[in-house]
Amino acid sequence: MNVSIIGLGLIGGSLALSLRQKGFTKSITGYDRNPVHGTRALELGIVDQVVNSIEELSDTDLLILAIPVDYSSALLPKLLNMVSSKTIITDVGSTKSGICQNVKDHPRRVQYVAAHPIAGTEFTGPDAAFDGLFDQKRLIICDPDLSRPDALELVQKMYESVGMKVVFMGSEEHDLHAAYVSHLSHIISFTLGLTVLDIEKDREQIFNLASSGFASTARLAKSSSEMWAPIFQQNSNHLPKAIDQFINYLSQFRDAIESNDPDKTKALMNEANKIRKILKEIDGQ
Amino acid sequence: MNVSIIGLGLIGGSLALSLRQKGFTKSITGYDRNPVHGTRALELGIVDQVVNSIEELSDTDLLILAIPVDYSSALLPKLLNMVSSKTIITDVGSTKSGICQNVKDHPRRVQYVAAHPIAGTEFTGPDAAFDGLFDQKRLIICDPDLSRPDALELVQKMYESVGMKVVFMGSEEHDLHAAYVSHLSHIISFTLGLTVLDIEKDREQIFNLASSGFASTARLAKSSSEMWAPIFQQNSNHLPKAIDQFINYLSQFRDAIESNDPDKTKALMNEANKIRKILKEIDGQ
Repeated sequence: MNVSIIGLGLIGGSLALSLRQKGFTKSITGYDRNPVHGTRALELGIVDQVVNSIEELSDTDLLILAIPVDYSSALLPKLLNMVSSKTIITDVGSTKSGICQNVKDHPRRVQYVAAHPIAGTEFTGPDAAFDGLFDQKRLIICDPDLSRPDALELVQKMYESVGMKVVFMGSEEHDLHAAYVSHLSHIISFTLGLTVLDIEKDREQIFNLASSGFASTARLAKSSSEMWAPIFQQNSNHLPKAIDQFINYLSQFRDAIESNDPDKTKALMNEANKIRKILKEIDGQ
Repeated sequence: MNVSIIGLGLIGGSLALSLRQKGFTKSITGYDRNPVHGTRALELGIVDQVVNSIEELSDTDLLILAIPVDYSSALLPKLLNMVSSKTIITDVGSTKSGICQNVKDHPRRVQYVAAHPIAGTEFTGPDAAFDGLFDQKRLIICDPDLSRPDALELVQKMYESVGMKVVFMGSEEHDLHAAYVSHLSHIISFTLGLTVLDIEKDREQIFNLASSGFASTARLAKSSSEMWAPIFQQNSNHLPKAIDQFINYLSQFRDAIESNDPDKTKALMNEANKIRKILKEIDGQ
């Protein structure tokens, strides 16, 4: 089994490390459009060799795209044109509807498996990669009926080898839920960062007043804009509505505070507290 | 030194444990309006004795209020009426302007020190208390000129004994900064919880799509409404404005996504990324 990865950052790099660690494959070839990342990935032992052009990967058995979603979406049709019928291609992107739409009529569509490993940190690049990132996490495979059975089986086996639990859903359904559960969290964390930085010009009072609660809520504001801008764009069908619903609830808090109605703020918080049970199960996963 | 604590939850309980651990005092008397908490605090060795009424604490040297801010604010004038000139009183509340305003003309105002230890977790009650909660954290003392020098010195010494770094500021200034850095984080975390629970009726998709990022951002939504409703209310001068600024930035994200302007979302995220440096220093504290 000959595995190639395009994009040697946190996700691609961690996957390479774990696939070798778990014995899924012995040799991994990498490509990164940033040559510094390629060299670094070699130094860190993430890949066995690095190629200088994507064309050199045309003979691979399994080709994994671990790059920003806009780049994946544009690249996938070209890759399907380039490979023979033996190559299986999968991507790791956080949005799935756009990329699936982009190849829906491609004659080699069946060789592509739309996947999204629910794992990550706020760090990027090969130095952020580590074995264990995927352990006990979920892997979403979208529109499985549109992939060849051997393609599905290979991608599923690969992710199970690094400890993931596989879940299937439609690509539109995936993007809808991702808008609320994942993308919205990132946007509000970025927004918290912006708001606090805007008012606290001298920074010293942030240090004085910030608890671990602030650090936890603002953590995602450290995330990479290069990665997230395309995700938000690719999920523009659902995300504005998710933001509107968020603003609606936030305005209810605002109005209750302004009109001195602690019963209303309490009721909102008691409802929000129901997330406890869910967070407990997530932590326990 | 004879120390009494009203409120034997996370903050009061943790302070009791640490004060004894660090040798600041040998004996601590407690009171909690919830008798179950009083009994549990005795069982856990948090306090040496529990009294059944606040009046029994009138002879204490140092009286610490670790109760919701509305209750503190209402109780403080009565306590100042009750004690002799030897008793120093301090509170741990997350808002300071209202309580200071409430006792500004009280003849014993100088015996009160308005304090806010910047420490906590999303858990509550005596079982959540632990030694070490305050270590390396900041303690804000507000309006120090309005307290007697021996009162200030005692409270400062007490918090330093449990590892805190003391910072001074005005009570109005405190509430302004707390609105942006602390209270807003809680409100948006509650709001995220509400929004996600509202759309994800069947819960299963939350498990499927939730990463550690969601868990981190929604963590504060587990917090107690009994504690936070009075804080939001007591900070109603600043909090609606902080929420409006947050909504303004959030709307910029929304509009940029809807009008397909990734350069704008990138610019917002790059600005928010400046929080990295600050979070790094908070984590390193």
